Amino acid sequence: MTISLGQLAVRFGCTLKGDADLTVSSIAPLTTAEAGSITFLANPKLRKHLSETRATAVILDAQSADACRQAALISTNPHATFARVATVLYPVPVASPGIHASAVVHPSASIDATASIGPQCVIEADVVVGPRVVVGPGCIVMSGSRIGADTHLLARVTFCARVIIGERCWFYPGSVVGGDGFGFAHERRAWIKVPQVGTVIIGDDVEVGSNTTIDRGAIEDTIIEHGVKLDNLIQVGHNVRIGEHTAIAGCVGISGSSTIGKRCMIGGQSGIAGHLAICDDVVLTGKSMVVSDIRKPGFYSSGMPVEEAASFRKNVARFRQLDKLARTVQRLAGHHGSDDAKENE
Amino acid sequence: MTISLGQLAVRFGCTLKGDADLTVSSIAPLTTAEAGSITFLANPKLRKHLSETRATAVILDAQSADACRQAALISTNPHATFARVATVLYPVPVASPGIHASAVVHPSASIDATASIGPQCVIEADVVVGPRVVVGPGCIVMSGSRIGADTHLLARVTFCARVIIGERCWFYPGSVVGGDGFGFAHERRAWIKVPQVGTVIIGDDVEVGSNTTIDRGAIEDTIIEHGVKLDNLIQVGHNVRIGEHTAIAGCVGISGSSTIGKRCMIGGQSGIAGHLAICDDVVLTGKSMVVSDIRKPGFYSSGMPVEEAASFRKNVARFRQLDKLARTVQRLAGHHGSDDAKENE
Amino acid sequence: MTISLGQLAVRFGCTLKGDADLTVSSIAPLTTAEAGSITFLANPKLRKHLSETRATAVILDAQSADACRQAALISTNPHATFARVATVLYPVPVASPGIHASAVVHPSASIDATASIGPQCVIEADVVVGPRVVVGPGCIVMSGSRIGADTHLLARVTFCARVIIGERCWFYPGSVVGGDGFGFAHERRAWIKVPQVGTVIIGDDVEVGSNTTIDRGAIEDTIIEHGVKLDNLIQVGHNVRIGEHTAIAGCVGISGSSTIGKRCMIGGQSGIAGHLAICDDVVLTGKSMVVSDIRKPGFYSSGMPVEEAASFRKNVARFRQLDKLARTVQRLAGHHGSDDAKENE
Repeated sequence: MTISLGQLAVRFGCTLKGDADLTVSSIAPLTTAEAGSITFLANPKLRKHLSETRATAVILDAQSADACRQAALISTNPHATFARVATVLYPVPVASPGIHASAVVHPSASIDATASIGPQCVIEADVVVGPRVVVGPGCIVMSGSRIGADTHLLARVTFCARVIIGERCWFYPGSVVGGDGFGFAHERRAWIKVPQVGTVIIGDDVEVGSNTTIDRGAIEDTIIEHGVKLDNLIQVGHNVRIGEHTAIAGCVGISGSSTIGKRCMIGGQSGIAGHLAICDDVVLTGKSMVVSDIRKPGFYSSGMPVEEAASFRKNVARFRQLDKLARTVQRLAGHHGSDDAKENE
Repeated sequence: MTISLGQLAVRFGCTLKGDADLTVSSIAPLTTAEAGSITFLANPKLRKHLSETRATAVILDAQSADACRQAALISTNPHATFARVATVLYPVPVASPGIHASAVVHPSASIDATASIGPQCVIEADVVVGPRVVVGPGCIVMSGSRIGADTHLLARVTFCARVIIGERCWFYPGSVVGGDGFGFAHERRAWIKVPQVGTVIIGDDVEVGSNTTIDRGAIEDTIIEHGVKLDNLIQVGHNVRIGEHTAIAGCVGISGSSTIGKRCMIGGQSGIAGHLAICDDVVLTGKSMVVSDIRKPGFYSSGMPVEEAASFRKNVARFRQLDKLARTVQRLAGHHGSDDAKENE
Repeated sequence: MTISLGQLAVRFGCTLKGDADLTVSSIAPLTTAEAGSITFLANPKLRKHLSETRATAVILDAQSADACRQAALISTNPHATFARVATVLYPVPVASPGIHASAVVHPSASIDATASIGPQCVIEADVVVGPRVVVGPGCIVMSGSRIGADTHLLARVTFCARVIIGERCWFYPGSVVGGDGFGFAHERRAWIKVPQVGTVIIGDDVEVGSNTTIDRGAIEDTIIEHGVKLDNLIQVGHNVRIGEHTAIAGCVGISGSSTIGKRCMIGGQSGIAGHLAICDDVVLTGKSMVVSDIRKPGFYSSGMPVEEAASFRKNVARFRQLDKLARTVQRLAGHHGSDDAKENE
């Protein structure tokens, strides 16, 4: 796809600085871009690299425009505009509507005429597939599930029975929606399975990464609200609710019945215990562990960064004596009068 | 499925308080239950909610019965009884016996006449599939594997060659049993693969969650004993042995050749290093890391819970000086006499 | 496969101690080996077990040879020689060349005549499959991908569009190469997807474990160099580069745009933040978290090992007061003169 800067400026409401007839056909990073490509500058710290770029055009904000010798599309949010421009330059290939001959589709399934069902798929009874949905190769949609318009299952996605999926979602390979939650009753030192009779309800514009798993509810439902973005290899337990526009990085685990607010950002490998609530607008840095409610928006951490192994080992040994050490310090502080002593009570 | 309280009381050995002819057809949470549903009360702290419930009946223990104005099924283990009642109300759909036309089954495979092989499956040479086994859509069972009676592969499960699976197990989508262990020899700064010639042996009543992976043994076998429950996205390394009725939450990693005892409970995202042993009846809380044997039953932890990022950063900076700090405290305590000094030796 | 010790000695350049006509047909662990098997001794600490072994032969180094009463193959690297011997004794089953009737192969795909495409596979347009490649059952190779000679996809592997795979690689079930990276622009408190237009380039002799995911680059490519070994359930973000012969254990997460050097060893469940660089020859122990560049080879750690839960809780409570405690100690040290005080500045 090739497009002129003038067309892009009009389409995305940017101020154009430079020749409207210049055309671009690819995106590229600021410093390695070549002629014919368009790049962007969102981080003012990188402004010094503007002079190096050979891109035909740069998407940037007004403050950076003067420093740019190439053509520029001036936007209040260069990163978002860049995302939109890239979407124009790299359109998602259109899948041909219809059902591939090798797919196994139950006669009771309702497949919109504009939807595409790829090779080796299985669509079970009573499934409803909406307009322009693309079910890529090797996907399995179990009985009674419903998929909203324009949703895309890239390949080898599994939807278990009765899940409800919104519009314009993307699911990546190996993702599983609606497996049974981890619910067992204890009896005589063994476990009895508790049937998981809820389902999963996913809103619109949700993205679910490769090999991410979202369990169905035990009695009630697991709910993923509009605009949630889930990276790869995330585990979402039964009865979890994730609020609108929350983004969760890879390898996060969310235990059953916890609620995460809207617009949160959860760092990679974080773990959230069960039956707790995190309010809106919380940011967890990587490898955080949450074991009780978070009621105040803000940044939270518990991931310990590496140090050299030898010194870490020594510090860990001291950590294991920390309570004792603190009591010693309190005693010592007591010898020196109440001010120091109080500090560590 | 609709069933009377009288039938349930007889079937599960409960004392019935109320009208034996009342019927229930669904399960529901205590506080949101409606007429026609049955719920349960296992945690005495929730007893105050008994008065609110509109469930037709509540499964509870004798101590809670007086506080219940609805019909009640009195059980010594309400959660376990609830699990059994729910299993009656929500029977697993029966799969039709036989092999779907789209499945590819090697002629040397032995498929019991009562087993069901779903669409798009691949069953390789010399596989043995027992009575009433359900192999859901898109599963792959590689050569020489054996699946015990009544085991259920929900969908898109992979069994690699020669694995041995017990009876009444459940496998969820994306689970992989018998991939090669991570075994390499080091030579001239590169890696040479060590063939993984053992297999995986899984006992009866085991549950394996979505996208969980269990590697085959290097020389000997990886063994999962009866009644083990594995949640989603768990990694079980080669030659691991997991004892009976141990339950492991999501995202746990178990390195090669480690042994976990019976009736352990391993919290989510815990990591267990290789070549170590954990005894029976150990509980690891979430995000624990085990790097040496645990020889005493009990609770163990190492997951650090979040605090606000700014204060966490300060505390981490101090942690990195902890050995030095402790030595200073020892010196200071020395100035004050032997009692304090001894404390921190 | 049965082979004589004489043949093995010649083939792998070992000194043979014992009867060259003795034959072996299996591998076994040192202490449980039976006649007919070959075992190895790499760790001198296990030398005391040499006298117990009933293996027909032991692969060991010159220092251990005298202690061995069985036949011995003397090698400078017994583990590597053992790997090679095992590869001879347990050859990978040869797949028949050709395309299974149930596979769906696009007419524009180029499949080498010596390659094998298994049942239920999907090979899309313009894919190139090299000589002796084995694509096991249920694999999906999306449009434009290229697979180098002798590479093996065990089963149910997914390659998304346009990925480039080297020679002699192994991919295990559920692995996904080339899913979209986690790239979004923020706008008005929601997320806009940034098209991920790069790809994944994988070198030769790479191993990718079950359910591991490798995302395609955002603009440039994700690169896995020759000889890299990835265990199960690893997440590799977009634009990551992993250097030659680096080995990464299970459940590791690597965020976008980070670079890992050559010959690194990354312990299980480690997490590496985005946009950073780790130099060559770094070892991270299990559960490490890296949030800034590592510029010096060596061992690094941050995983805290478990202790009993009760004492851990107390120590964590003190950790949260650690900055305050350290300040108290500084003050106390000040009372005692400058030497102590300086220590903790």
